[in-house]
Amino acid sequence: MERLKQKILAEGKVLSDSVLKVDAFLNHQIDPALMADIGKEFADRFADVGITKILTLESSGIAPAVMAGLILKTPVIFARKRKSLTLTDHLYSAKVHSFTKQETNEISISQSFIHQDDTVLIIDDFLANGQAVFGLIDILKQVGANIAGIGIVIEKSFQDGGKMIRNAGYRVESLARIAHLSEGNVTFIEEEN
Amino acid sequence: MERLKQKILAEGKVLSDSVLKVDAFLNHQIDPALMADIGKEFADRFADVGITKILTLESSGIAPAVMAGLILKTPVIFARKRKSLTLTDHLYSAKVHSFTKQETNEISISQSFIHQDDTVLIIDDFLANGQAVFGLIDILKQVGANIAGIGIVIEKSFQDGGKMIRNAGYRVESLARIAHLSEGNVTFIEEEN
Repeated sequence: MERLKQKILAEGKVLSDSVLKVDAFLNHQIDPALMADIGKEFADRFADVGITKILTLESSGIAPAVMAGLILKTPVIFARKRKSLTLTDHLYSAKVHSFTKQETNEISISQSFIHQDDTVLIIDDFLANGQAVFGLIDILKQVGANIAGIGIVIEKSFQDGGKMIRNAGYRVESLARIAHLSEGNVTFIEEEN
Repeated sequence: MERLKQKILAEGKVLSDSVLKVDAFLNHQIDPALMADIGKEFADRFADVGITKILTLESSGIAPAVMAGLILKTPVIFARKRKSLTLTDHLYSAKVHSFTKQETNEISISQSFIHQDDTVLIIDDFLANGQAVFGLIDILKQVGANIAGIGIVIEKSFQDGGKMIRNAGYRVESLARIAHLSEGNVTFIEEEN
């Protein structure tokens, strides 16, 4: 997705050979018009597979997921990283280790909102080691729902997550795939199409 | 906002005389089309005051804030409840006590994204005791930015936050104002207009 790549080149900050900071438009400050374009791109790529629910993870997945849900006309559920007092329903939970934050969170969704007959699109902001996505897949397996695929805004393809998830048989659509980060520069994987 | 009130009546759950659970469309599962309407309503109410940035708080404020920002053509910044490793900038921070969750969080924004010459609209999902909004106001006072007002999706008017914030001189626009919760029922404050 060309506009996203240009935004990454213009406003992303390469902090190391493994860390790309996109706080200027995705992870802290959000560019709503770009999110709308990203949502439309996800909706286009998953238009014909009968999505009934979108599942994401708080917080940075919410904006792109809601924009996709607006077009696909589906509800969006965001998994929570901590239990809140009003999240009193029975829960599906999974453990997710964040290598960036050096911590393991339990993520949860209420059993009320996704069911066995749902066809679910997972959306997240970043794909690196794949821990978050595997946590969401774990939850959807507990539900017994159909997993239509995974939509990712930025994939760090030099880390293992994308390969592991594709090898497990899932369709992954990443709007920007980064081949490597080095000396402050971002190099994208060339698109096939 | 009539559509929002109808949604609260249809899908909200009154857990006690002080707790309204709206996990079905706002706090866990999100209704994207309703969020778009809410965003439009905020944008209409604050159309003529020169908003340059929207400030919200993760996670439930993000969806309505991004929809408002899409129409007002402004960036959205979400304050974070925990510091993340890639949030390395100098920060503005404030303490926020949540009576619901019985905990005090430090909320923070990077100094990179809101400046003294900004006119800021604060958006949040709920207004009860006002702690979250006062935390965001505290941060904007540190910035020295102009605070144009506060847009709230659901105000529990029987709690003190709304009165305190209005008495402090801020404009508060709440799309649904709840007079009281009792015996499982929601009673709204009648709109003036």
